[in-house]
Amino acid sequence: MENGGGANGNQWGFKANEELKTASGITVRGVLNSLLENLNKNDTRPLIPLGHGDPSAFPSFRTASVAVDAIVHSVRSARFNCYSSTVGILPARRAIADYLNRDLPYKLSPDDVYLTLGCTQAIEVILTVLARPGANILLPRPGFPYYEARATHSHLEVRHFDLLPAKGWEVDLDAVEALADENTVALVIINPGNPCGNVYTYQHLQKIAETAKKLGIMVIADEVYDHLAFGNTPFVPMGVFGSIVPVLTLGSISKRWIVPGWRLGWLVTSDPNGILQDSGIVDSIKSFLNISSDPATFIQFLKSSRKLKRNSFLKSLTF
Amino acid sequence: MENGGGANGNQWGFKANEELKTASGITVRGVLNSLLENLNKNDTRPLIPLGHGDPSAFPSFRTASVAVDAIVHSVRSARFNCYSSTVGILPARRAIADYLNRDLPYKLSPDDVYLTLGCTQAIEVILTVLARPGANILLPRPGFPYYEARATHSHLEVRHFDLLPAKGWEVDLDAVEALADENTVALVIINPGNPCGNVYTYQHLQKIAETAKKLGIMVIADEVYDHLAFGNTPFVPMGVFGSIVPVLTLGSISKRWIVPGWRLGWLVTSDPNGILQDSGIVDSIKSFLNISSDPATFIQFLKSSRKLKRNSFLKSLTF
Repeated sequence: MENGGGANGNQWGFKANEELKTASGITVRGVLNSLLENLNKNDTRPLIPLGHGDPSAFPSFRTASVAVDAIVHSVRSARFNCYSSTVGILPARRAIADYLNRDLPYKLSPDDVYLTLGCTQAIEVILTVLARPGANILLPRPGFPYYEARATHSHLEVRHFDLLPAKGWEVDLDAVEALADENTVALVIINPGNPCGNVYTYQHLQKIAETAKKLGIMVIADEVYDHLAFGNTPFVPMGVFGSIVPVLTLGSISKRWIVPGWRLGWLVTSDPNGILQDSGIVDSIKSFLNISSDPATFIQFLKSSRKLKRNSFLKSLTF
Repeated sequence: MENGGGANGNQWGFKANEELKTASGITVRGVLNSLLENLNKNDTRPLIPLGHGDPSAFPSFRTASVAVDAIVHSVRSARFNCYSSTVGILPARRAIADYLNRDLPYKLSPDDVYLTLGCTQAIEVILTVLARPGANILLPRPGFPYYEARATHSHLEVRHFDLLPAKGWEVDLDAVEALADENTVALVIINPGNPCGNVYTYQHLQKIAETAKKLGIMVIADEVYDHLAFGNTPFVPMGVFGSIVPVLTLGSISKRWIVPGWRLGWLVTSDPNGILQDSGIVDSIKSFLNISSDPATFIQFLKSSRKLKRNSFLKSLTF
């Protein structure tokens, strides 16, 4: 029997991983893939794209030509075909630190910056680092379901707090206090909000920081939509409050620069008091990056061609 | 106290992840990073690069200009700035299937091919899929330590079999039979060998396949050095024996095409009897890819510029 293996001729030792099915089923991609697989292939009507926000799919959204030129220059140079440093190459980390420093009351160094495969991998890194038996994390409801998927995969218990529609989707801080216990490791905020589009005020962000400090947990600030803020409230990065509580800031070039498929994101420790260093979180981030894949090196090379000598790629994209 | 958090003012709920430290310490990158961090920075003598094989670091090794042109064309087209399909874009999967089919007695379809972030992520995917409580995997000694690192991270028990120097580093198949039990899921071979550089004969690969079938386990064939074979033994892909036992073939563009930093690899199911499909392994691979990061989309676009219209990128690189 060609199909039968195993000592007794009909058994194989491997089998499906049900845990992965559960985690995958929570994600936007997982649900989208299921829907697409179940479409009637004989139905020729056009599909309306729902979910999976990707501005680059629409011809009216284009990235800056200077960004494309920088990639072309980088790949033509042949200098960046090599493996990357596990934390990302220095010029790119410096460019991101400089970019974020424009809005902070203290200075990040390149060593506070870790390059990742989009914001997706930044989430994977920090949730994997924080997972330990019995630990739990506080996630917003509604939120971005990839957090739930990766927490499930890492056996990190999820506890949801509500966002309050009547208060512009602010965090229900009383609920946060009620949910947290000695095994709580972090609170996640997404600002500007996904999926609600809200932008938090300086005052509300400060209250989040003070609540997290009181509870002894870090704040993970997903700012992948930073500066894509509409309305009257200006975007304030959570890192502004890094002196109150350690902040992990996640971002990427995906949305604002309209190139999600380039897969370049970052995880930044906004922590002027060095608590994440002292507690070993920084070493754990580095350890996980040692056993993870890196963004393509030539995409990390953010310095641009001679014509654009004085600008870094990221600076030149800051419009 | 700015540095003190927690309900009692001096405690933080998060801490270092010791498991990650253990896993990271096994890898070549982890050891290399530790060494570099401990160098005397005042010593100006040049360093001899040891470990972390990266041909692109040496000016005598350059990829083909047609490959660079294909990337440039892809990024300039603005058609591949979008998110990728979770399994990889179709033209790239088709090109890889066509490339591998040249050496197989049956035909792979693009649906047998999954694009990954280099061979590194291909290893991550399959070890994560196979991990379940109590399961074990058989790894070669000597071998490539990233397998041990990811198996440790996923709590997949590692059992080592020796490679036999007197027999050209062949697998000790008696040892394999003695190590395997009902919880063994797979046997890993690296061919051409890393770190030994051996190339297995057709006959030895067939014996490996027959042993694995008898034990009811799959073969994971790491062929990242495929066709970089020296000596008199021609390279034979393990997929040739897919009719005997299900084979997972791992590969990448890193070594042969001298662009490891481009981060493009593949995981291929060489399994004409559909055992991996029937057992749910294929669905588990797809599930894990749903919660993983993808290679940059424009790098996946392997079709080349008008000038190279009739060649796919991979075909054009086949020298």
